[in-house]
Amino acid sequence: MDVVLLIFDRMTVLDAVGPYEVLSRLPGARVTLCAAEAGPVRNDSGSLALVADAAMAEIHSADILVVPGGPGTRELMGDESVHEWVRAIDRTSRWTTSVCTGSLVLGAAGLLRGLRATGHWMARDDLAALGATVVAERVVREGKIVTAAGVSAGIDMALSLAGWESGEEIAQAIQLLIEYDPQPPYRAGSPDQAPARVVARLTGRS
Amino acid sequence: MDVVLLIFDRMTVLDAVGPYEVLSRLPGARVTLCAAEAGPVRNDSGSLALVADAAMAEIHSADILVVPGGPGTRELMGDESVHEWVRAIDRTSRWTTSVCTGSLVLGAAGLLRGLRATGHWMARDDLAALGATVVAERVVREGKIVTAAGVSAGIDMALSLAGWESGEEIAQAIQLLIEYDPQPPYRAGSPDQAPARVVARLTGRS
Repeated sequence: MDVVLLIFDRMTVLDAVGPYEVLSRLPGARVTLCAAEAGPVRNDSGSLALVADAAMAEIHSADILVVPGGPGTRELMGDESVHEWVRAIDRTSRWTTSVCTGSLVLGAAGLLRGLRATGHWMARDDLAALGATVVAERVVREGKIVTAAGVSAGIDMALSLAGWESGEEIAQAIQLLIEYDPQPPYRAGSPDQAPARVVARLTGRS
Repeated sequence: MDVVLLIFDRMTVLDAVGPYEVLSRLPGARVTLCAAEAGPVRNDSGSLALVADAAMAEIHSADILVVPGGPGTRELMGDESVHEWVRAIDRTSRWTTSVCTGSLVLGAAGLLRGLRATGHWMARDDLAALGATVVAERVVREGKIVTAAGVSAGIDMALSLAGWESGEEIAQAIQLLIEYDPQPPYRAGSPDQAPARVVARLTGRS
């Protein structure tokens, strides 16, 4: 089973690595990170690079496509060659997925029109503008299209996908292997839960 | 503030990237990934490489040291030059931390003797053999030494550390930015919670 992760300059690396750590453990998974060109790709803060082992042009199909998010999605949203590639891979895929603002890329490629979808909570208006019906859920499945909320939500999305694809017992074994028994020290992981001053700090509306 | 992550062949990449995504957002953070040599470093499954931007020999101090885990810790446990480096960095650090089997490396370097510590649930016996008092907790703090349970626990550890280092409001803002409101699809993230057959699948004791 071919799992393809699209990476790009100024991605948010946990968006990609959360699903990677789950999906790479699926039975028979062959994972490929690809980018515009093969080679190192820097993340949003610039202090970490992942290596793309393939160029997008070398990848013609995927069983599972994962599009992570990050500030760099702004460039991808305006890049028609990326949209064409995403649509071409989607025509071959069993699952087309996104994490965080990766849903803006699926949306820009026209894959979310009329569908329920999610993404980073700060990007909901942008997502709606692309024709999606935005819902404030952590993981949203519409047929084979699966979108996840911000950054860390990719772990939840990938575990759900693991269960749909390979069955509950394998998904649970992966969850146990990555010891995903989350115990956040604060209740601050969504704009509904976080203290108002913390939300204001990020939105600039204080 | 200098944050240093040690990476190595056959690491588990989420062990490193979970804390990275949190700690890189601390005010004034300068993050460096280092390894035996600068350049690409492959993970445990071989299908992902992170780039080390520095060689260990170039790094002489850190405010926060993070040692991730993975199968490759076996080699590090027998490498005295790594232990010396870890001890040298620890002498300069405000925080010396590990995720998953990274605690075996801290233990092999002699830093956990007589201390409470944690690590991946499948490595508890190995951790005890290094002189630590193993506790089945997600994040364990002993002064400036902080150890986390398996893989995904590094996110919880780093958020706690963010709060201790930079205050609760900043830690909460980071949690909100990475939308860390976990909703695992299964109750299977620890050996106590997971169905017995799932635990047996990993331990080989069925």
